[in-house]
Amino acid sequence: MQTKPTCTSPVSDYLEDLHRKYVPLNDGVVATYIPELAKANPDWFGICLVTAGGAIYETGDSRQRFTIQSISKPFVYGLALEDHGRAAVLSKVGVEPTGDAFNSISLDPGTGRPRNPMINAGAIATAGLVEGSTPAIRLKRLLDMFGLYAGSELALDEAVYNSESLTGHRNRAIGYMLRNFDILTTDPTPVVELYFRQCSVAVTCRDLGIMAATLANRGINPVTGKQAIRGEYVESVLSVMGSCGMYDYAGEWIYNIGMPAKSGVAGGVIAVLPGQLGIGVFSPRLDARGNSLRGIKVCEDVSRHLDLHLLNRPSVGKVALRMKCTGAELKSSRVRTLAEATALKQCGRRIGIYQLQANLTFSTAEAVVKDVIEHADELRCLLMDFKHVLSVNESACRLFYQLLQKFAQAGKPMLFVHTDRIPLIRRYMKVRLKEGFDRIYRAFEDQDPALEFCENLLLDNTLPGWTMDLRVDPQQYELFQNLSPEEIAQLVPLLRRKSFDPGEVIIQAGAPARELFFLARGHVSVFLSLASGARKRLATFSPGMAFGEMAIIEQAPRSATVLADTLVECDLLLLDDFADLNHSHPQIKIKLLENLSRVLSSRLREARQELQLFS
Amino acid sequence: MQTKPTCTSPVSDYLEDLHRKYVPLNDGVVATYIPELAKANPDWFGICLVTAGGAIYETGDSRQRFTIQSISKPFVYGLALEDHGRAAVLSKVGVEPTGDAFNSISLDPGTGRPRNPMINAGAIATAGLVEGSTPAIRLKRLLDMFGLYAGSELALDEAVYNSESLTGHRNRAIGYMLRNFDILTTDPTPVVELYFRQCSVAVTCRDLGIMAATLANRGINPVTGKQAIRGEYVESVLSVMGSCGMYDYAGEWIYNIGMPAKSGVAGGVIAVLPGQLGIGVFSPRLDARGNSLRGIKVCEDVSRHLDLHLLNRPSVGKVALRMKCTGAELKSSRVRTLAEATALKQCGRRIGIYQLQANLTFSTAEAVVKDVIEHADELRCLLMDFKHVLSVNESACRLFYQLLQKFAQAGKPMLFVHTDRIPLIRRYMKVRLKEGFDRIYRAFEDQDPALEFCENLLLDNTLPGWTMDLRVDPQQYELFQNLSPEEIAQLVPLLRRKSFDPGEVIIQAGAPARELFFLARGHVSVFLSLASGARKRLATFSPGMAFGEMAIIEQAPRSATVLADTLVECDLLLLDDFADLNHSHPQIKIKLLENLSRVLSSRLREARQELQLFS
Repeated sequence: MQTKPTCTSPVSDYLEDLHRKYVPLNDGVVATYIPELAKANPDWFGICLVTAGGAIYETGDSRQRFTIQSISKPFVYGLALEDHGRAAVLSKVGVEPTGDAFNSISLDPGTGRPRNPMINAGAIATAGLVEGSTPAIRLKRLLDMFGLYAGSELALDEAVYNSESLTGHRNRAIGYMLRNFDILTTDPTPVVELYFRQCSVAVTCRDLGIMAATLANRGINPVTGKQAIRGEYVESVLSVMGSCGMYDYAGEWIYNIGMPAKSGVAGGVIAVLPGQLGIGVFSPRLDARGNSLRGIKVCEDVSRHLDLHLLNRPSVGKVALRMKCTGAELKSSRVRTLAEATALKQCGRRIGIYQLQANLTFSTAEAVVKDVIEHADELRCLLMDFKHVLSVNESACRLFYQLLQKFAQAGKPMLFVHTDRIPLIRRYMKVRLKEGFDRIYRAFEDQDPALEFCENLLLDNTLPGWTMDLRVDPQQYELFQNLSPEEIAQLVPLLRRKSFDPGEVIIQAGAPARELFFLARGHVSVFLSLASGARKRLATFSPGMAFGEMAIIEQAPRSATVLADTLVECDLLLLDDFADLNHSHPQIKIKLLENLSRVLSSRLREARQELQLFS
Repeated sequence: MQTKPTCTSPVSDYLEDLHRKYVPLNDGVVATYIPELAKANPDWFGICLVTAGGAIYETGDSRQRFTIQSISKPFVYGLALEDHGRAAVLSKVGVEPTGDAFNSISLDPGTGRPRNPMINAGAIATAGLVEGSTPAIRLKRLLDMFGLYAGSELALDEAVYNSESLTGHRNRAIGYMLRNFDILTTDPTPVVELYFRQCSVAVTCRDLGIMAATLANRGINPVTGKQAIRGEYVESVLSVMGSCGMYDYAGEWIYNIGMPAKSGVAGGVIAVLPGQLGIGVFSPRLDARGNSLRGIKVCEDVSRHLDLHLLNRPSVGKVALRMKCTGAELKSSRVRTLAEATALKQCGRRIGIYQLQANLTFSTAEAVVKDVIEHADELRCLLMDFKHVLSVNESACRLFYQLLQKFAQAGKPMLFVHTDRIPLIRRYMKVRLKEGFDRIYRAFEDQDPALEFCENLLLDNTLPGWTMDLRVDPQQYELFQNLSPEEIAQLVPLLRRKSFDPGEVIIQAGAPARELFFLARGHVSVFLSLASGARKRLATFSPGMAFGEMAIIEQAPRSATVLADTLVECDLLLLDDFADLNHSHPQIKIKLLENLSRVLSSRLREARQELQLFS
């Protein structure tokens, strides 16, 4: 169990200061147009801010229940969009601001279409679009939908509903007007009753904060992770909130506060900053326009203090490029022979390596693609690592698809690494590339094998025959450098030849270190077992190289597992024999240790150079 | 000279496709209400997309000149805001959408205040707010302002201006109505003439794209880097474009296209996606509302295809945290003695290391601060590295300030690293911390010394006396481990004691390697000279350690420079003497080489572990 941190969040501190600041604001009056609302305590005051990442900050009466009222309108509008799609909904309700008050009827003189879904007429027309064969089913769908947004089950305040229903003559008149224009095509009574019920859903300020944050998080409740509305409709819901959400105050609201918002006559207000956060405020004291007085003040302050205006955004251009380098600077963990290393030193810069991050949209991906295009002529292959990418949208996928096409046409491989967490990339390519998919789309789970693929491709061009099944003799062993033929002849009897099949374990992590290995034929790879259970390749060795030397030097158990990649032949030098050399052949031992130091020193230098790349 | 890449950008390809798609759209008519406009070729059609990063993509007649017309309105509104501030401008012109057509007079019945600055009445009132003692000065200020936005000098199309002036009776009527209500307080004639002139500025579609991108880039022209409008007013300009920019089409525009926009009767349209890009389209065929038909189609397509709707944004929560670890995983380049390393192994996790990136705003910084707060109890000190941060705003600064306060109150240092490129952080802290600034705000140019500071702080607590001016005897030399007293006695005569003053060069990069150094007293640091001219510390050594060994092993010149940090005493072992040991004392040589291999092996293991952190 995690103990509660003793340190409070600066955001909580801020909300408490804000709450304290506006408690003395005692202007405004509680709504009385329906008797039940008049029972509210005018001093109730709660604030809740919820981030799109799911952090909840709340203060004051944030758990006090009250009715959602007009704040229900955008959410029901979203449900209507899911039920019918944009075009059908637009044919029933427009999206133009009226500049009029909330109870304005504002029907289009010709078609009878309400001007927008935030005025009562539009909201009633919208309620008429909720699918369901019976009123009970339609109500249940509404409550389920609200529950997904809030992350908890919500219910009606029956007293408020009865009061609304008893006094809602104007809304019944609107219902019949809509029926008259065939905007409603059935008896308006159950529709108007559904509208009264949607307004009577009991919520807390905390609920509102989470509901707003769900809209900020593209329809996914950031606390529960559940989807409350399909992401594609969120922009439409927020658009009508932005242009019509605050009635005749809408223009000034966007100008001053810059967040789509909606208020309710019971004193609730929500505001949404897409991608970032949602705010819920509750205070029943209303201004002349029917908006919560403290609610507006809090939104104004929060927007100004936290710099949340929707239209004041820093440039995202460079955000997606985490790191960029070439194969001359970053190497695969395949340890290269001198000939290979020399060849790669000359042509490694023809491997372009791009590590991406953040959210890939048109604008963030464009900056990456532009950089690639500018260097495309110099590149032989391109490695795109998506490991740190948080999300990708279709327009970013299209840019990468177009880039892939261009590279494919030029006969240059483009490798996609770590796309497992963003499956849209693969799906998009599969749909667009069709039968070419298997040939053109190359996915790698990890950067290291992808980089090795690129290196090998360059070696194929520059070092013909490098991949031949090479066998080396002891005089070619890296650690036998500078040894005379006689010295080598003295060592050879100590070596024991051993063969391994592909996949066979040569060294098991944790085992005691009893021998040093010289690779005579084939390739071996060193793996570390990660906490996740996955294996991470640390190195691959080629004929002539030694391995298993670090545990020998450090006199410690094996720290990693070594597997045969191919058919492998090794010469084993037992630790005891290696130790005996101290006295039997000290000059040989000295040369071996000098060679070993040289190899370690050069690998350390390389590792440090790579570290520079990342720091 | 860079050669032009042979590979075209996918974005250019896309714009060309789009251009091709809408060339056949021959509906709509060229404006004729002033005779000069009727001379436009109805087939002209250009598209230009400019990113907030300054990439320009253009196609078609993107260099054809035409008059800006109503697209001038938001830019002049921005100038009025700079001249008078928001409150004064709001007292003259409102910001509510009218739902009416462009030439609607729409004055508030009580005050005569035009409803918004995008209708002609509001634009004329706005033109009346441009400061300058003479009409010529006011015109020059307007043209200079437009030139900053476009990145090139702009001029009037005199023929169009004359035509506008000859026929502009309705606008003159509006001018006098505004004078009547004291919205204009001087003769309206020169104001209306300035308005005619601002509408007659000749631009190209490319100019419009750059102007739009300047608004997208918080007022800084992304091509020239020059500021065209103060960043704080951009949100206001975009707000009126968003709510009132497309006249009676504004609600539907935001709903469908989701970008603040403005059209002009000569056929231009601009659209702005804040932080991302600007679009300019030019096609003189107009629809019934006076908007460019192809212009609207192109904006619709671009918005849908590239997923540019303002209110459809992915969650930014996790974007700012590049990497997070503790002092147990990442070490300073100060090479630790065994006692120090053991102490740090136990308590290193009490150093919190956060590497930040991207744009720090309230929402991105909140996610970082929340994570710190959750771990604050376990931390002894906190290192915040801003190296990869692109920008920071005041509300993010406030969060870091509040965090710093909490850490300071708990007596825990919070270190600010790499804040040089985002000076706002330091300025903000200085203003808020006042006289406490020098005591509380700790800035470091690089992560490495900051991390060493944290490590040293922990060592002060756990290993009292570790910093004492230590002298060690040869038997304590790391490389002399396992040597018998007799063996050490045989080596000592070969060592030559040498002293260095603080700051003195001990090894010069590039020099031949002639000796191995054993540090007997004081500290030395190894530095690499970077291309930038700066020096990067690679390592700091303590008494007992050897240095200068890598060049010896590799038989290469010195690769780095070593300086004395303090008063230093070293024992030098000449390369020749080291070689002679092979024959004079082979067993000693073997032990030295074994020790050396062990040191290198353990450093290599550490370097590879750090590399894992970053991959």
